[in-house]
Amino acid sequence: MTTLKNDRFLRALLKQPVDKTPVWMMRQAGRYLPEYRETRKKAGDFLTLCKTPELATEVTMQPLDRFELDAAILFSDILTIPDAMGLGLYFAEGEGPKFKNPVLTAADVNKLAVPDIEQELGYVTDAVSMIRKTLDGRVPLIGFSGSPWTLATYMVEGSSTKEFAKVKGMLYDRPDLMHKLLDVVADTVIQYLNAQIEAGAQAVMIFDTWGGVLTTRDYKNFSLNYMQKIIDGLKREQDGQKIPVIMFSKGGCQWLESQAETGVDALGLDWTIDIGMARHRIGDKVALQGNMDPSVLYATPERIREEVAFILQSYGKGSGHVFNLGHGIHQYVDPDNAKAFIDAVHELSIPYHL
Amino acid sequence: MTTLKNDRFLRALLKQPVDKTPVWMMRQAGRYLPEYRETRKKAGDFLTLCKTPELATEVTMQPLDRFELDAAILFSDILTIPDAMGLGLYFAEGEGPKFKNPVLTAADVNKLAVPDIEQELGYVTDAVSMIRKTLDGRVPLIGFSGSPWTLATYMVEGSSTKEFAKVKGMLYDRPDLMHKLLDVVADTVIQYLNAQIEAGAQAVMIFDTWGGVLTTRDYKNFSLNYMQKIIDGLKREQDGQKIPVIMFSKGGCQWLESQAETGVDALGLDWTIDIGMARHRIGDKVALQGNMDPSVLYATPERIREEVAFILQSYGKGSGHVFNLGHGIHQYVDPDNAKAFIDAVHELSIPYHL
Repeated sequence: MTTLKNDRFLRALLKQPVDKTPVWMMRQAGRYLPEYRETRKKAGDFLTLCKTPELATEVTMQPLDRFELDAAILFSDILTIPDAMGLGLYFAEGEGPKFKNPVLTAADVNKLAVPDIEQELGYVTDAVSMIRKTLDGRVPLIGFSGSPWTLATYMVEGSSTKEFAKVKGMLYDRPDLMHKLLDVVADTVIQYLNAQIEAGAQAVMIFDTWGGVLTTRDYKNFSLNYMQKIIDGLKREQDGQKIPVIMFSKGGCQWLESQAETGVDALGLDWTIDIGMARHRIGDKVALQGNMDPSVLYATPERIREEVAFILQSYGKGSGHVFNLGHGIHQYVDPDNAKAFIDAVHELSIPYHL
Repeated sequence: MTTLKNDRFLRALLKQPVDKTPVWMMRQAGRYLPEYRETRKKAGDFLTLCKTPELATEVTMQPLDRFELDAAILFSDILTIPDAMGLGLYFAEGEGPKFKNPVLTAADVNKLAVPDIEQELGYVTDAVSMIRKTLDGRVPLIGFSGSPWTLATYMVEGSSTKEFAKVKGMLYDRPDLMHKLLDVVADTVIQYLNAQIEAGAQAVMIFDTWGGVLTTRDYKNFSLNYMQKIIDGLKREQDGQKIPVIMFSKGGCQWLESQAETGVDALGLDWTIDIGMARHRIGDKVALQGNMDPSVLYATPERIREEVAFILQSYGKGSGHVFNLGHGIHQYVDPDNAKAFIDAVHELSIPYHL
């Protein structure tokens, strides 16, 4: 394996000393970049972009060529898993993701099985290998998956949702079915992330985008519980290197203490929590990743620097902080503002690591 | 003034002993009721419904005739205020609220002024008087307003939003303008709520629907700060009766301690927080209102009862709890399930007040 030229990101996740705070952005390969929109047009549609390793590699690399990012993240979609399980993912123009065969009944749940990862999701592991090769040790590559609960919301609703009527209907009325569904998805995520690790992912992240819509009790039973299962089933070492795991429950900052007890290496934070307060609450247990409000990128470069300075000061001295946005970068952000953000993190964080 | 036949709601807000836990539902007069849909059809459109006191009274009373509710809430919309400020509220079919004249520039902000409440919002105070008369002491009447920050999101975006790009752009880039806007809205809310109190509202609630999209620092500066101003400016007594004030920041449960310090009588809770934990955190400082996940109403009556029992047990013995949902009732809920919810609260709460 090539030696990493920049291992700041991995070191910070493991709370080892760094020279500057590492930084990357959720959805850094995305629609705010004109070159992404070009490749997307060339691909024809979003799914083709995900399913063609050459194109996925191309867009994964694009933000690295513009900005001094400390990590690359596999370009893919969290819904590849339900698609591989036979739900028939498609994207209706301007409408977000949809499934031809949502999971609505007991029979639908009972039919679910862990798919053959190599056969059904080989395009993802192929992309991981190809990106890793293209990166050539420049920065580490992050693999990822949605959390079982987050995937379940799409699988049951058949699309994005604001009210979660069907999926919560199942959760409250048929918890047995919901647990069965989550269990098979968790088993799939384990195999999926382990395959990404074997293919070259140097850290993995679990995106629990919708954990925050649950009650405290249900978050533990229906979301955290299955992320725990995944964490217990992951390969935490590959080729002699530790593979750090990051967990991110958006809207879940009230449950940081329980999240930190799962054995993850780092917790993602949305922007609503003060990162210094989060560090105070979880102590030195895990690293923290976050958490600038993505909307700050609509402001001026000067204002962006101020906000970066505020968050760095709030976290304080020492390693264990991976700077990021508190959610994915918005599509209407000016790429120059993203650059101002990334440069500010590197420049302003030096004193915190002396 | 007529003596109240049922003052459980007001007593609980003031932490005085009650026989049962009082209960009402946010958006209890709404689309899930067939009789509401009838009146709405008769009105022609939503704004006419809001602006015609007879119709607003009719729909306010509808849920009381079906369920054993312990409070009525004025039927209106939080956007009456920006409408009265000249922004030109309209509802595009199936698209949610829009403004003809959103607040986009410094000039737009500088033009804003407190409207003449009697002239521009007399239809609201007329509705309050008429509802109060129609209630004839059956249960107390709640008046309400949106919080300045929540109103600002609609005023700047010109519509509902998921990304808050424009309003946060202004907040981050031109905090001076944002403060000016919030200040004039806060002054308006004070006069508006005081006018509702004079017209007969026996408690008032401030809905901060979008406080939870802010960072901890910005929540305090741009949302809580202006709710504090309102609370300081409200008439807290009318005709010798105390007028309790409820504040509800959705997604704001991490800031309960600061909310409790504003001098409110009660805090609304969304469903993500365990109510026992919330009570533990704020002690006996204020009453709590909430917090069943509205999606539980998609489950069976048996399951709804279980969830009610769980929340009652979590809150524990004694007064200071007004049962409610953690957000407005969804439009596709079966009214019979709402009845099961309300009846369960009354029936199962008796032992907690012995």
